[in-house]
Amino acid sequence: MTSELTGYSFIGFSRGVGVESCGQSVNPATSEKIEPIYHSATPDEIATSMSLADSAFPVFSAMPGKSRAAFLRAIADRITDRLDQIAARGPLETGLPEARIRGESARTIGQLRLFAALIEEGSWVDARIEHAEPARQPLAKPDLRSMLQPLGPVAVFCASNFPLAYSVAGGDTASALAAGCPVVVIGHHSHMGVAEIVAQAVVQAARETGMPEGVFSMLYGGGRKVGTTVVKHPVTAAVGFTGSRAGGVALMEAAAARPCPIPVYAEMSAVNPIVILPGALGDEAKSVALAEAFFGSLTLGCGQFCTNPGLVFLPETGTEVFLTKLKSLVEAAGAGVMLNAGIARAYAEATASFASQPGVETLAHAKDAGGNTGAPLVLTVSAGQFAANPVLHGEMFGPACILVHGNPDETLSALAALEGQLTATVHGSEEEISANSAVVSRLRRISGRLIFNGFPTGVEVCSSMVHGGPFPATSDGRSTSVGSMAIFRFCRPVSWQNAPQSALPPELQDANPLGIRQQVGA
Amino acid sequence: MTSELTGYSFIGFSRGVGVESCGQSVNPATSEKIEPIYHSATPDEIATSMSLADSAFPVFSAMPGKSRAAFLRAIADRITDRLDQIAARGPLETGLPEARIRGESARTIGQLRLFAALIEEGSWVDARIEHAEPARQPLAKPDLRSMLQPLGPVAVFCASNFPLAYSVAGGDTASALAAGCPVVVIGHHSHMGVAEIVAQAVVQAARETGMPEGVFSMLYGGGRKVGTTVVKHPVTAAVGFTGSRAGGVALMEAAAARPCPIPVYAEMSAVNPIVILPGALGDEAKSVALAEAFFGSLTLGCGQFCTNPGLVFLPETGTEVFLTKLKSLVEAAGAGVMLNAGIARAYAEATASFASQPGVETLAHAKDAGGNTGAPLVLTVSAGQFAANPVLHGEMFGPACILVHGNPDETLSALAALEGQLTATVHGSEEEISANSAVVSRLRRISGRLIFNGFPTGVEVCSSMVHGGPFPATSDGRSTSVGSMAIFRFCRPVSWQNAPQSALPPELQDANPLGIRQQVGA
Repeated sequence: MTSELTGYSFIGFSRGVGVESCGQSVNPATSEKIEPIYHSATPDEIATSMSLADSAFPVFSAMPGKSRAAFLRAIADRITDRLDQIAARGPLETGLPEARIRGESARTIGQLRLFAALIEEGSWVDARIEHAEPARQPLAKPDLRSMLQPLGPVAVFCASNFPLAYSVAGGDTASALAAGCPVVVIGHHSHMGVAEIVAQAVVQAARETGMPEGVFSMLYGGGRKVGTTVVKHPVTAAVGFTGSRAGGVALMEAAAARPCPIPVYAEMSAVNPIVILPGALGDEAKSVALAEAFFGSLTLGCGQFCTNPGLVFLPETGTEVFLTKLKSLVEAAGAGVMLNAGIARAYAEATASFASQPGVETLAHAKDAGGNTGAPLVLTVSAGQFAANPVLHGEMFGPACILVHGNPDETLSALAALEGQLTATVHGSEEEISANSAVVSRLRRISGRLIFNGFPTGVEVCSSMVHGGPFPATSDGRSTSVGSMAIFRFCRPVSWQNAPQSALPPELQDANPLGIRQQVGA
Repeated sequence: MTSELTGYSFIGFSRGVGVESCGQSVNPATSEKIEPIYHSATPDEIATSMSLADSAFPVFSAMPGKSRAAFLRAIADRITDRLDQIAARGPLETGLPEARIRGESARTIGQLRLFAALIEEGSWVDARIEHAEPARQPLAKPDLRSMLQPLGPVAVFCASNFPLAYSVAGGDTASALAAGCPVVVIGHHSHMGVAEIVAQAVVQAARETGMPEGVFSMLYGGGRKVGTTVVKHPVTAAVGFTGSRAGGVALMEAAAARPCPIPVYAEMSAVNPIVILPGALGDEAKSVALAEAFFGSLTLGCGQFCTNPGLVFLPETGTEVFLTKLKSLVEAAGAGVMLNAGIARAYAEATASFASQPGVETLAHAKDAGGNTGAPLVLTVSAGQFAANPVLHGEMFGPACILVHGNPDETLSALAALEGQLTATVHGSEEEISANSAVVSRLRRISGRLIFNGFPTGVEVCSSMVHGGPFPATSDGRSTSVGSMAIFRFCRPVSWQNAPQSALPPELQDANPLGIRQQVGA
C-alpha cells in the first residue's frame, strides 16, 4: 500500500496543523528537494502530545504484556504493508541503496517481533517473591515482592544513519513501548518522508489493537527546537538518542538541568579500535584476507555506522602485505554518497584535520567525487604520536581510519589514552590472545563489546548483544540500545510490601497466572 | 578487641600523615569533643588512594566471586571482633542508643554476608550465551555471550544517620566490593571514630584474604573538600551517597560536569506519604492501634530515617479517635537527641517554616528539651492548601509530620503534586484498596516501595527490597541502595563475540565451571 504524505506531525491519533515550515527532505545524491514540505509541531501540538502521553501511561503500562505484544506485532505488519513505499522513498532521502533500506526495514520488523516475543513470554520483569516470616526474631519479616516497572513517557530522537532501525519505530521506540512507556518521537530532517510512512503504520497499529491515544506521537521540527522542548517537559521520563557527540551531550545537559533530572540514553561516538597481533598477519594469504575483510567493514554503508572501525593498531613489522593490499583496495574504491550535506561536510573537515596532525601520513585515499560524497581514506601514525594527540582519538564519521604502528608496550599505552568505545576487537591466534591478556583486559574495560577475529560492523539483534559502552560511546554505559536488554533502559524496580493478592500485578501473584519465571525465596 | 584510634586516613594499606585538622567528633548529647583529633587527607594522599584503586581494579575485578566473598565475610568477622568497641564509641558520636548501634552493626554484618552469598553462588552476573549459526541466511550469526562487569573504583560517602549500615562498610561499600569495584570511602564528620574502627576491620580483612592494595581506602576531611576531589577524579567510575538533597544534588552536578560523566547513586529526600482510607479507622480499637503504630514509626530513631513517614492523608471525617490518641502520645513523648548539631538546627528551622505556612495548624508538640534535641511534632492542613504550597512537600528531617485532610478527589490531586518518594503506604481493607486503584496507581508511580497496612520504617535487607524511587528520593530511580539488587548499580553488561573459550570469563564458558545459571539460546 502507499500512504499519502502530507507533511504534518502526528499528535496522538490526530495530525498537526503547524504552519511554520521546517523544510523538505533533500536527495543527497542530487541536492534536489523532495515533496512535500514539512511543518514544525507548534508549542500547542507539543503540549497536547505530552498530555496525551501522560494520560496514556497508566493505561498502557497496566496492559498485559500480550496486549502490548499485539501492538508491536501490528506495527511490524503495518510496516510490512508499506515496504515498497519505504524502499522507494528511503534511497531518495538518504543516498542509501534500496537493498540497504530493505535490509534495515527487515531488521526493524525483526526488532519489533523480538520485543513482542519477550513481553509476551513475560519473565523479563525479574519477578521476585519473598514470603512473610511472622515468627522471625527479633523482627517479623514482611511479605516482599518486586518487579520492573516502566519509567513513563520516553522521547525518542530519530537517527540520521538508521532511517528505520533507529528512527520512528526503531530499537528505542520498540524497547520503550515493550516496557510500557508511551513514546514521543522527534523526526530527523534528513528523512522526513520515511518517518511519515512509518508513523502512519504505528498509528494504524495502535488504533487496530485498541491502544490508548497518546501511546505514540511523532513531531517534526528538529532536535534543537522541538526536541529540547520535549526533553524539558515534566512528563518526559527518559530520552533515547542516536547521533553526534555534540547532540548527545547537549541532551545530557538539558536532562540534568531539569528540576527533575531524567536518564538519557545517547549513543554517540566511537572509533571502535582493532588491535592486530602479529599472528593475524602470519602469512600472505592471511594478510590479504584480513585487508579485504577490514576494507569491507570500513566502507560498509559509506562508513556511516556507529560501529565503523576507525582505528587500527598494527605491529611494527610484518605489515607490508596487509598495507599494500589495503592501499590498492582503497585507491580502487569509489566515493559514496553520504547521508546528507552536513555529514559530508563534517567528514571533509574531520579527515582534513586528522591528516594535518603531526606525524600523520596518508596511506591511501580514494578519488573524491564532489557533491555530498565521502571518499575512503586511510591514514597512518606512530603509537607515540597517536597517544600524545587527543585530536586523533576523535571520530571521522565516514569511511576513514587511522592505522597506528607500535610495539606491544606502545600499543598498551595508546589504548590507555582512549575514551569509551562501543566495540573493541582483537585479531590473533588463541595463544597470542592468551599471551596478550593485558591488551584484552584494557579493551574490555573501555568497550561494550569485545570481538575476536572479526569486525564490529554488523550488530546482531539478540538477547546477549551489548551495543553500549563507557562515555562518550554512550551517555550511560550501563545499557545497550540494541537487543532485548535494551528494554531495561526504560524500567525501574518497584517493591510491594504486604500487598493483598488482588493489589498485586499478575506477575507477582502466588497463582502466577501468566506462568512466568518467578524467583521465589531469597 | 579494641583498636587504637589515631585520627588518620587509610591510604590503601597505609595510614595518612595529613597535618591539617578536620576536627573531632562531638557528642551531640553533651556537645563535648571526643578524642582523637582527625586529620584531612592531603591532595597527595587522595591521589595515592585513587592510583591504588586504579591498579587494584583489574586484579580485584578478575578474582573469582568466591575470593571476593571471602573478603566480604572477613570484613564481617573483623567487625564482629570489634562490636564492643563500636557499641561504646557509636552512642557517644551519634546520640543513638547502644541497642540501635548494636542492631545496626548486626545489619551491616548481615549485608556483607548477603552479598558474599550472592557472589559466591555467582548467577547474579546474568550470563547469556547464544551460539553461532554459521549457516544462517542471509548472514551468519556470530557466537555472542554477555554478562555484567564492574564499572571501576567507586566513591562512597558515609551517611550521618547510619554510622554503620550506610557508612564505611555499609550497603554501598558491600555492593560495590561484591560487584568487583574498589571503594574509596569519604568519612562523615559526625562519627569519625566508628569510621576508623570499621576501616581497620576492612583493611585487616583485605590483608588476610590477599586482596590487592587499593581495594579500599578511607579518607577524612569531609564531602566538600575531599569528597569533591574524589568525585572529580578521572579514576572514579561511580558514586554512592546517602544524605541531604542539597548534598546529593551537588554531587550529581559535579559528576555531570566531569569530562567523562559518571553515575551518582544519591539517596536523598523523601516524606514517604501514607494514605489512610476510612476503613482503616473503622472502629475505635483500629483507630487507636493505628495511631500507636504510626507514632512508633514517626519517632523511631528520633525520626532520622530516610523512610520516616512525614506526610499522612486522612479522610475528611471519622478521624477523631485517631487524632486524639496521636495527640496524647506526642504530647507525652520526650524530645530525643539528634545525630549532630547541624541536623538539630535544620529540624528546628524546617518545623518552624512548615508551622508558619498558610492554613497549617499544630495538632501536637512534645516538650522541647533544648541542646541538640528534636521534639516530636504533628501539624495539620487541608488537602487544597497542601497541594498549592510546595514548601509543604519538602522534608522535616526528624520526628515531625503533617496530616492532610481531604476527600478522595482532593487527596488524588494532592498526591499528583508530590515529587518522587522512597516509599508510599496505603491503609484500608482489601475491598477499599481495590476500589481506590487510582490512588494506589499514583502511589506506585511516584515511589520505589508500596506498603499495605504497614509503615515504611524497617527496611528489610533481601533480594526483593527496593530502597529507591524517582527524584528527589534518589538521583537515579532505576536502582536500590538496600538489598541484593544494589549490586546492579555498579555494573554494566559486556558482550564477547566469537571469543575462544580460553578468552572467556568462567561464567560464560560452555563448560560452566562455576555451575551458575546460564541463559543459553535466545
